[in-house]
Amino acid sequence: MSRPKPLSGFPELSPEARIVEQHVLDLLRETFELHGFGSVETRSVEPLDRLAKQGEIDKEVYAVQRLHAGEDTRAELGLHFDLTVPFARYVLENAHQLAFPFRRYQIQKVWRGERPQEGRYREFTQADVDIVDAGTLAPHHDVELPLVTLGALERLHVDLGLPPVLMRVNNRRLSQGFYLGLDIEDPPAVLRQVDKLDKIGPQRVRDLLVDEVGVSSAQAASVVELAQISTADESFVDRVRALGVRHDELDAGLELLADVVRVAGRHVPGRLVADLKIARGLDYYTGTVYETELVGFESWGSISSGGRYESLATDGRTTYPGVGLSIGVTRLLAPLLGRGLLQASRPVPTAVLVALESEETREEAVGVAERLRRRGVACEVAPKADRFGKQIRYADRRGIPFVWFGGIRGEVKDIRSGEQLPADAGRWLPPEEDLRPRVTAGG
Amino acid sequence: MSRPKPLSGFPELSPEARIVEQHVLDLLRETFELHGFGSVETRSVEPLDRLAKQGEIDKEVYAVQRLHAGEDTRAELGLHFDLTVPFARYVLENAHQLAFPFRRYQIQKVWRGERPQEGRYREFTQADVDIVDAGTLAPHHDVELPLVTLGALERLHVDLGLPPVLMRVNNRRLSQGFYLGLDIEDPPAVLRQVDKLDKIGPQRVRDLLVDEVGVSSAQAASVVELAQISTADESFVDRVRALGVRHDELDAGLELLADVVRVAGRHVPGRLVADLKIARGLDYYTGTVYETELVGFESWGSISSGGRYESLATDGRTTYPGVGLSIGVTRLLAPLLGRGLLQASRPVPTAVLVALESEETREEAVGVAERLRRRGVACEVAPKADRFGKQIRYADRRGIPFVWFGGIRGEVKDIRSGEQLPADAGRWLPPEEDLRPRVTAGG
Repeated sequence: MSRPKPLSGFPELSPEARIVEQHVLDLLRETFELHGFGSVETRSVEPLDRLAKQGEIDKEVYAVQRLHAGEDTRAELGLHFDLTVPFARYVLENAHQLAFPFRRYQIQKVWRGERPQEGRYREFTQADVDIVDAGTLAPHHDVELPLVTLGALERLHVDLGLPPVLMRVNNRRLSQGFYLGLDIEDPPAVLRQVDKLDKIGPQRVRDLLVDEVGVSSAQAASVVELAQISTADESFVDRVRALGVRHDELDAGLELLADVVRVAGRHVPGRLVADLKIARGLDYYTGTVYETELVGFESWGSISSGGRYESLATDGRTTYPGVGLSIGVTRLLAPLLGRGLLQASRPVPTAVLVALESEETREEAVGVAERLRRRGVACEVAPKADRFGKQIRYADRRGIPFVWFGGIRGEVKDIRSGEQLPADAGRWLPPEEDLRPRVTAGG
Repeated sequence: MSRPKPLSGFPELSPEARIVEQHVLDLLRETFELHGFGSVETRSVEPLDRLAKQGEIDKEVYAVQRLHAGEDTRAELGLHFDLTVPFARYVLENAHQLAFPFRRYQIQKVWRGERPQEGRYREFTQADVDIVDAGTLAPHHDVELPLVTLGALERLHVDLGLPPVLMRVNNRRLSQGFYLGLDIEDPPAVLRQVDKLDKIGPQRVRDLLVDEVGVSSAQAASVVELAQISTADESFVDRVRALGVRHDELDAGLELLADVVRVAGRHVPGRLVADLKIARGLDYYTGTVYETELVGFESWGSISSGGRYESLATDGRTTYPGVGLSIGVTRLLAPLLGRGLLQASRPVPTAVLVALESEETREEAVGVAERLRRRGVACEVAPKADRFGKQIRYADRRGIPFVWFGGIRGEVKDIRSGEQLPADAGRWLPPEEDLRPRVTAGG
């Protein structure tokens, strides 16, 4: 066996980077649970026909098949490419035993057969949070979900040193109502062009609207004017009104979006804006849509997106509308870790290395370690009864901050300061900041 | 879309069962980290040629391929079927940046295309813990690993109410040295027959040894006598000696196994026995081998197995020997959950439902919830301003123990006792046992 090479698009973290990821996932889980969301994990595979959208199977899907299934057998299963489609299936399958509105979070790997590049992976972790109800879903959940997500992202910023975020929110009913108020016949076609605004600029979007969608110059101008409105407060409502377009759906969308912006301004000030160019590509969104960028790293694209979907899950009789957001954990962390912008204070959980005087005292050392562990101190016994200088270097190389000498009543050395003091393994604790590896902003 | 059906072999947990699983995984992680093991996650796929054993690919492997790769393309990747093979590859790939001896745990899903039945799944979770070194691995790690694993399983028993376990340990050098001391030429062939002892009994094993392996009746009798030795202390050594066989490998194996039994007897009394019939099917084990059964549920088979492997990972120049154990988390939990032998005290993380007087006071209720969350109390605001009786029934249906009425200085009702008291959302805490869902033994 020669030394194996990494597989492009399938990132693997070093033990140190994995500590950072675990801290991030712990904080996400804690925040979601504090908001009353329970964990769901779905199987990794779905029938291929369920991964298909409107009969079309996306070419990003990985098919899965028993290796010895036979050459002629066609694959029937695929790895899930997001957590929304499996969740919709889970809700339908278990609707009879779930309590609605059903609040769940889901942190799992997903797979896409895309061409790998920075920010695009073939295997990556997502953290999704959704609320679904049976029949109708109250509009206040569109306000609640960004608060939960921004609360989680704010903890990553404050507690772990990740950059702050800015969430951009729109409502498709607002945009589509506006287009209908302008007597435009094909609102989805217009949305698809508006989606290009950041990439190609207002002039080219206006041209495409006239040339490709067939709207008038005046209509195109209004569409682009709407898309250019972005405000941190409710003032976007007046700016839309000033464009002079009237439609019931527009009114409904304005009211819903104003609620989101107003409540977010109170609970997570500075982290959310109304931005009327946000469209989101996926067809299943029907109302509020969310995108989120890392401040200072906007070019990385959205690290948390989502929206409301009225009819993703339906069994023919009952429809289960939902609203949710997905945090791209790998997409968020991989570039930060790669640039050294996030670090663990040490690459191992171990706080104390219990040194060995000789191989004969190993059992005594195991006893010391057991005492320390009982009070939550992670430790390991030295693998070899080398001379003490060598054992200290062993700890140093791994980033283990303390070395224990002697029995239960022994001495403990902080190898960073060199200070060595008598200590009782039944009482001694390291300083709080050394008990576990911490995550800090580096770079 | 009609109601989807479960996929056989791909279990999915209810939100309540998932809480139990999360508690189990948390305790495993905590125990492993207290012993100085760091987390590694490997990608889910490996090149098919790496999943092959000695050129033969097991038919249990799932191949993975981009759906639109083209009909003629052969799959090159497969889902991993355990965590040992990917870990061996990870060690080889990253050897230049790992500190040896390298201590890692790994909790991930694995996939096998087996025929599904109780205790056999196509997708399931394993928790592995291993130590590998470069060149040679000290024998005391064979003693350490069962202590770590039994420590974790003991916490599942004491803290969560899972049944206790019994680990059965043998050493292949002991068995093979014994066979060599008997002048048997093909020890692996003997081991394969001994492996059947529990299923077919001593008489048939003796017959097979004579008829199939070609040993003498006297040799066969000695082999079976050895395999029937099982002791909770070091007395197995004298019983083996009494059989009158001599070989250096036998001596080495006896000494190693005696160390495991002696130290385990002191640190995890009653949980480990020497059992000289344990063989373990997998070819890569070369020394100590471990199997673990749930007491009272022995027929479910081993829920935690492993052993020492001298040469699973080698790059031609350096060999990385290791010793490790794997806990079959799904295999352990699925039958216990299915029989109602493990339960969560409630199926949601929520401790408090903040009731709503009217839709106009929703923001005030969100403020109450925020105050409670800041001190770690999971809560959600009522989805609808129904009359209070209905909101209390909503909490009751979900197992939420407390309902909050009014503002920050309001009242909180324990809906189980009916007791309702004034409370300040900035100070009030539920009793410790209600703060989070607990796991309890049921049935």
